[in-house]
Amino acid sequence: MIYLDNASTSYPKPEEVVNGVNELICNSAGSSMRTANTEKVDIIFKTRELVAKFLNVKYPTSIVFTANATESLNSIIDGFLSKDDTVVTTAIEHNSVIRPLIRLKHEKGIKIKWIKSDEFGYVNPDEVLKQVNEKTKLVIMNHASNVTGMVQNIEKVGQALKEYPNVRFLVDAAQTLGHIPFDNEKVKADFISFTGHKGLLGITGVGGYYINPQINMRPLKVGGTGVLSELLVQPAGVPLHYESGTLNQVGIGSLYYGISYLNEVGIKSIATSLLDKTKLLITNLKKLDHITVYSKPNSVGIVSFNVNEVIPSRLSTFLLEDYDIKTRSGLMCAPFIHEFLGTNPYGCIRASLSTKNTKKDILDFVGAISKVTQNYNDIRNIRIPDIYSSPSIYNVD
Amino acid sequence: MIYLDNASTSYPKPEEVVNGVNELICNSAGSSMRTANTEKVDIIFKTRELVAKFLNVKYPTSIVFTANATESLNSIIDGFLSKDDTVVTTAIEHNSVIRPLIRLKHEKGIKIKWIKSDEFGYVNPDEVLKQVNEKTKLVIMNHASNVTGMVQNIEKVGQALKEYPNVRFLVDAAQTLGHIPFDNEKVKADFISFTGHKGLLGITGVGGYYINPQINMRPLKVGGTGVLSELLVQPAGVPLHYESGTLNQVGIGSLYYGISYLNEVGIKSIATSLLDKTKLLITNLKKLDHITVYSKPNSVGIVSFNVNEVIPSRLSTFLLEDYDIKTRSGLMCAPFIHEFLGTNPYGCIRASLSTKNTKKDILDFVGAISKVTQNYNDIRNIRIPDIYSSPSIYNVD
Repeated sequence: MIYLDNASTSYPKPEEVVNGVNELICNSAGSSMRTANTEKVDIIFKTRELVAKFLNVKYPTSIVFTANATESLNSIIDGFLSKDDTVVTTAIEHNSVIRPLIRLKHEKGIKIKWIKSDEFGYVNPDEVLKQVNEKTKLVIMNHASNVTGMVQNIEKVGQALKEYPNVRFLVDAAQTLGHIPFDNEKVKADFISFTGHKGLLGITGVGGYYINPQINMRPLKVGGTGVLSELLVQPAGVPLHYESGTLNQVGIGSLYYGISYLNEVGIKSIATSLLDKTKLLITNLKKLDHITVYSKPNSVGIVSFNVNEVIPSRLSTFLLEDYDIKTRSGLMCAPFIHEFLGTNPYGCIRASLSTKNTKKDILDFVGAISKVTQNYNDIRNIRIPDIYSSPSIYNVD
Repeated sequence: MIYLDNASTSYPKPEEVVNGVNELICNSAGSSMRTANTEKVDIIFKTRELVAKFLNVKYPTSIVFTANATESLNSIIDGFLSKDDTVVTTAIEHNSVIRPLIRLKHEKGIKIKWIKSDEFGYVNPDEVLKQVNEKTKLVIMNHASNVTGMVQNIEKVGQALKEYPNVRFLVDAAQTLGHIPFDNEKVKADFISFTGHKGLLGITGVGGYYINPQINMRPLKVGGTGVLSELLVQPAGVPLHYESGTLNQVGIGSLYYGISYLNEVGIKSIATSLLDKTKLLITNLKKLDHITVYSKPNSVGIVSFNVNEVIPSRLSTFLLEDYDIKTRSGLMCAPFIHEFLGTNPYGCIRASLSTKNTKKDILDFVGAISKVTQNYNDIRNIRIPDIYSSPSIYNVD
């Protein structure tokens, strides 16, 4: 199989991760933060340290672990926003941002300002900032579009927001960590949401977020903390306030091994490698007829395109069944961006690369597409339903 | 090491689980419920089927996966209860029930009736039922105390509750699944909360719950579902309504292998084995001086006790450091039960066995305790603080 769906879940995982997880399951008895575990021997605490360093934030204790980026975003959006709050966000967000916001709009009357993107998924930071004022509670920005791979200028937004001491800044880094460097001394985010199983090379079931330690919010879940059992309310203090129940020691451990591997390889060399690979793919795709590409070369590893008038999910299935190539297609949980890419209502097809994908993988993939398009007249069959209303940021209920 | 902390996390995991997880990480590319996965090949769907059969509930789709039992209980308590609702529950509940309830008491004015236990942690089902009327919204019962291992008569409560068509029944089965059979045709629970890493022998990071498909509640989290991306609200229908973001394919898979192993061994033989082992441990502990035992022989595998006037956490540390025996001690996230065991404010020490613990393990453990108690006059040093108010169900703020 040629695996081109790394933006969903990275594959293969490094040997270090596979072996580390195996070791944890076989040898690690008992739960973290329970009797007779200390910070020194605790892989969970070691992972907090590693993540904090990776993001360049000061305190390991301000790293909270969750089950995935969706839980991180729900924890922040549901926990931090109150009645009638105003949020500024963008058209390139994932449904893990959009759906929690829309729900709070209905439940608590929050107001949401949606900023458009260009035809490659780039959001002008000045247009974001133009919508911010003293009354804004939270600005939410995707670090890179999961559809096009376009990296956003979050540094400009984060630095400009320092003019508004009451405005908090949330960055969704699900698609970027492990691919491009993240330095929160420059970004100045108050929240950074991440997942473990994509660029950070951990297994599924682990994610997390950084929270500015000055912020106190309602925890998504409360319950057993293993310590301070006599308190009937959730103990204060990060990360205990936000982490209830048995932590995913195995998953968090996988993140430890994944990030250690990344540190050894070096993020900058990964970024360069992916930039080169996406450039190669885009250049070769553009040589074919009937192709529209929605990505510019990027270090996230994502290249999205369409064979014109071909339903992308059908193309994705062709590629899997006839060529054993795994891609992803459709709206990809990002319903608003397609208005600006011109890809409504069927979305597009996405190839997401890792550093493990070879030049041959890429050229074989282009070869498969070219063979498919040789039958172009047979396969083009888009019939847009007469009445179909795609989601739009200009008309959000 | 003699590992006697299986009620925290079971250890060791069966070889089938270790190998299954390894296989999943090495060979399973991509996320479930995304493009080109079908129910047939999907380990997540296969696990739903296995769990549904294990609980004897009808539909695999009414099994929802979470990160742990705490998330399951928060999802149900937070999602199902509304302003001013009345709940009946017990003194033996875990903080993963108590803290969400107390929070809703403060936030939404719910009313909570707490039912006492006897000195072994048994709750009289008639006393529970006496507090139920047509206005009760939810009855919550622990299937077995995590402190004493006492199994509750949930069948009697569940069947009697059928008289009240509007009262829903939630069973916290964190400590029982995998140890004793669970047949929901008899229990008639509307919600069954479970965790994967204890008796079900999966890895950390996976739990779940059964939800009666007639019930519709607010999901704890909303976000990407991989399908129906164009909807700006969370899609309806179980389990999609309650499962957002990338599922923990590896953890859920570990549950598949764990339950498959249990099915092969047979739950009844596990129940018998644990009953025998707890009987052996209790009999031998009672031969020693200065010991108070709080458990009766049980199939959960839990034996809790104290060396009189010795701080249990100190004893637990002795055992680990001097004898390489892993136990747990303290209030164990169950603050109310200790009033009835007479173990406030320091709790007790818990040995929780698995079928892998040998007769020798048990006798060595008793031997270690007897050696510790030979220095009884040196180690008894409980100083109860003059002013210390332990949590009580008769005085809940």
